[in-house]
Amino acid sequence: MTDIEIANAAQPLPIGRIASGLGLTEEQYETYGRYKAKVRLETLQGRPLHGKLVLVTAISPTPAGEGKTTVSVGLGDALTALGTKAVLALREPSLGPVFGIKGGAAGGGYAQVIPMEDINLHFTGDLHAITAANNLLSAMVDNHIKQGLAPAIRPGTVTFRRCLDMNDRQLRQVVTGLGGKANGVPAESGFDITAASEVMAVLCLAKDLSDLKTRLSRIVVGENAEGGFVTAGDIGAAGAMAVLLKDAIHPNLVQTLEHTPCFMHGGPFANIAHGCNSVAATRMALALGDVVVTEAGFGADLGAEKFFDIKCRQAGLRPDCAVLVATCRALKMHGGVDKPDLDQENVPAMTRGFSNLEKHLENLRGFFGLPVVVAINRFPGDTEGELGWLTEKLAAMGVPAALCDVHQKGSKGGIALAQKVLDALRQPAHFDFAYGLEDPLGEKIETVARRIYGATKVTFSPEALRTLQRLTRLGYGSLPICIAKTQYSFTDDPKRMGWPESFEITVRQVRLSAGAGFVVALTGDMMTMPGLPKRPAALSIDMDEHGRIQGLF
Amino acid sequence: MTDIEIANAAQPLPIGRIASGLGLTEEQYETYGRYKAKVRLETLQGRPLHGKLVLVTAISPTPAGEGKTTVSVGLGDALTALGTKAVLALREPSLGPVFGIKGGAAGGGYAQVIPMEDINLHFTGDLHAITAANNLLSAMVDNHIKQGLAPAIRPGTVTFRRCLDMNDRQLRQVVTGLGGKANGVPAESGFDITAASEVMAVLCLAKDLSDLKTRLSRIVVGENAEGGFVTAGDIGAAGAMAVLLKDAIHPNLVQTLEHTPCFMHGGPFANIAHGCNSVAATRMALALGDVVVTEAGFGADLGAEKFFDIKCRQAGLRPDCAVLVATCRALKMHGGVDKPDLDQENVPAMTRGFSNLEKHLENLRGFFGLPVVVAINRFPGDTEGELGWLTEKLAAMGVPAALCDVHQKGSKGGIALAQKVLDALRQPAHFDFAYGLEDPLGEKIETVARRIYGATKVTFSPEALRTLQRLTRLGYGSLPICIAKTQYSFTDDPKRMGWPESFEITVRQVRLSAGAGFVVALTGDMMTMPGLPKRPAALSIDMDEHGRIQGLF
Repeated sequence: MTDIEIANAAQPLPIGRIASGLGLTEEQYETYGRYKAKVRLETLQGRPLHGKLVLVTAISPTPAGEGKTTVSVGLGDALTALGTKAVLALREPSLGPVFGIKGGAAGGGYAQVIPMEDINLHFTGDLHAITAANNLLSAMVDNHIKQGLAPAIRPGTVTFRRCLDMNDRQLRQVVTGLGGKANGVPAESGFDITAASEVMAVLCLAKDLSDLKTRLSRIVVGENAEGGFVTAGDIGAAGAMAVLLKDAIHPNLVQTLEHTPCFMHGGPFANIAHGCNSVAATRMALALGDVVVTEAGFGADLGAEKFFDIKCRQAGLRPDCAVLVATCRALKMHGGVDKPDLDQENVPAMTRGFSNLEKHLENLRGFFGLPVVVAINRFPGDTEGELGWLTEKLAAMGVPAALCDVHQKGSKGGIALAQKVLDALRQPAHFDFAYGLEDPLGEKIETVARRIYGATKVTFSPEALRTLQRLTRLGYGSLPICIAKTQYSFTDDPKRMGWPESFEITVRQVRLSAGAGFVVALTGDMMTMPGLPKRPAALSIDMDEHGRIQGLF
Repeated sequence: MTDIEIANAAQPLPIGRIASGLGLTEEQYETYGRYKAKVRLETLQGRPLHGKLVLVTAISPTPAGEGKTTVSVGLGDALTALGTKAVLALREPSLGPVFGIKGGAAGGGYAQVIPMEDINLHFTGDLHAITAANNLLSAMVDNHIKQGLAPAIRPGTVTFRRCLDMNDRQLRQVVTGLGGKANGVPAESGFDITAASEVMAVLCLAKDLSDLKTRLSRIVVGENAEGGFVTAGDIGAAGAMAVLLKDAIHPNLVQTLEHTPCFMHGGPFANIAHGCNSVAATRMALALGDVVVTEAGFGADLGAEKFFDIKCRQAGLRPDCAVLVATCRALKMHGGVDKPDLDQENVPAMTRGFSNLEKHLENLRGFFGLPVVVAINRFPGDTEGELGWLTEKLAAMGVPAALCDVHQKGSKGGIALAQKVLDALRQPAHFDFAYGLEDPLGEKIETVARRIYGATKVTFSPEALRTLQRLTRLGYGSLPICIAKTQYSFTDDPKRMGWPESFEITVRQVRLSAGAGFVVALTGDMMTMPGLPKRPAALSIDMDEHGRIQGLF
């Protein structure tokens, strides 16, 4: 059965049943149809965040991904099956990829979050609200310039871009304001996909409405004549933007196929932003559940590091355990096997590629101080020889690990993993950040690159160095850093697999996300507006006269 | 009290109560929060559309509008108060104006539809879904061109534009696809506000899901090498667009301050499109209510004519009565009074401006064959002398009329009007269209311009003539026509007030809306993307830490 067939065959509980199972009263949430709700942030007031926090992360992935969301969902269901009050906190998907390259974002197989169609389409409208707030700011900035309002924004310095929740390469680079004075002031600009917008990162890091407005106010839109920054607050846009986000800030409650509650809320990029679901969702889950399973983007070098150093630090959260998802496929890839050959058994390649897993393990255990369980996520092509080798290898190292087959078996395929996770949660965590905020910006970047990636040298372009100096001078020196790097390698070269012995990281550009509260260090060209492929998924997506959808995922 | 204070002080009923009052079962609708629902289109199956249909329209308006929505809401409440099972069918507002120039779109004073904040912000997400479907088509068109897919679209012929639900003049004229081959193919283009998108008109005219998909397929996006049209269906986009609109097609159910049910759904422009709420909403209201009050855009020359000749014709609806909203202010304006002096009593000016009302009355009664009631909508500055003169004038002519003060008094201020409407509904209607579909396109345009506007001459630009011939040749000759003209005058010059004796209408351009199913005749430059004013409403809109909104409307 396909994912959509499994999802449609499911018998979801009315969302009120899920909410009351969490101890929520009807005043504390609003339903969106039968199977979705938004739980009001005020529900958190006065509640201790008593739950244990489990982060699901992965080794450096293949382009198809290692199934972190599927493992998270299956782990949540297995914990529920074992009698634990488990709650999931996950990212919500973007429309762009749904119509671009096939791939759902609500788990897969028998480990899915439902209602899958709704979640992958408009859901509760959060991404549309973010798009509207983002584009209101852009319209107000350009109107501010055209009308000559104070404080003056210097022409050509506007850095804030419009966004759309769509894969549309045609909008990457545009010229706006053409056709004469009545149509504004001609300007070079572009659109990002909504997930890459700073407003998305802001929503995901905001603790409450006040914090949301403060962060929106801080977003830098351009420069004044003196070379200082002009912010969204300076031009009076933050209040109206917050009003557009008044519903989007409340975390969405849905359920898995096996009725485990799931807060699915926010989904920022994991390169130019921090890549985790909202702080509001994670806090809500910690207040209402005993064990919270959450997820970070890409591999642990990017996703987990940002989860710890940006999200947990800003939100005052302490993780208790990490699950490191590994697959035979990814290990073979790190051992030098090309994509077409990944389905062939190749234990020697896995042996060569194992260094990638080892380095991630060292980071999570040694540098961040967390108990780690490795989840060996089974894929159809895996052989018993490969799975056996990996299991034994980890056992020999004394690393807690479990084979995970939740895609095929649901919670039954995750019981062993859940038991190992419960064991790990009984161990003390000695969590610490990778760096201190008081370190200079450049040093923070160096620390992550050397300690977490294992770089032997870190080089800054002259432009990057100048920006770091300028941001420090303007008072942004104590922000955490967010490194934008390829997810396929510890290095900044997507082709260097495994854990290269000696490599250099080059920081080419530095940008400020003042609203989100971090400084982005770019180690390469980051794509913030995807394009459609030659045969977009949209071509296969259709609906019959009864509203039955075909071709979605 | 302000509109928002009145709205917030209201005690709305749970939307399930409103739905069950209409005889709906829980399976027939989905709630969106406590006070909004979408009623499933399938509910209509097998139900006769037994309700009487009352159209609220107006004389040629002042720029501030004559309060058609407020009168509609108050009339609905007064009918309810008189024991009639009344249901409203109204347009849903766009975000653009909310943050641009102050002005709610859910009625006003004590005649409002609630929840007003939600309705004026994201509501149930219909406009966002339309934006997404529109922009998916654009992304697919540009991807189709870049990837060189068949059928080939000739570069430079793409007429379909992107849209945003925002007032953003900067996007009226843009160049996209810059920065090299990886970013698409450079093209001149632009954005419209979502309400002006053909997808909005399509959603509003679609009877069901099949009809929706058929209409989406027909949308023309550009031309092929042979000079024929390439449609959304030709490039395989219609199915995915329909999937994005799967929820948006179901009409939204809300309530008035006095708990009259209101289907608020769809809101297309009234110049380049037909300007009425969705066919789905009107049909649903006719199936569930005994008297349905609905509204058309602008004055009766534009809104009512399109309501009859486009919407009623396509949907097989027969109106039973029209309410013509008139104000002392508008009559003074038509009598030559300038805006700053409209608050001064001036019966002689009203006498001069009365010809505007007379012509609209003649159109509705004489040409369309409907019983008409004039609603004299009271504004704060009106004097007893003015209201008395107008009441007597209409009485002397034997025209049913009633003073309407629903803004200040709610249903109590509309009882007299409701009684006159009920009287009118007891009279036979002899409804007919303004023209037959079998007439040639140019003749249909001439008929409306001469009969409805009273033009003495109709001129077509050479370009307009060529397009009319081409569209006829390509098989679009039997579509109804949609004239885009200023709403301030019967003529195509917004400064010519009253009912000018002798004037010429010039058709400058002709466009095809093949999905919506009409041919647009432009009599001037129509603005399809508004801009923000020097002091946008957004600057005053704010939210406190408890989520209480200030400055909205």
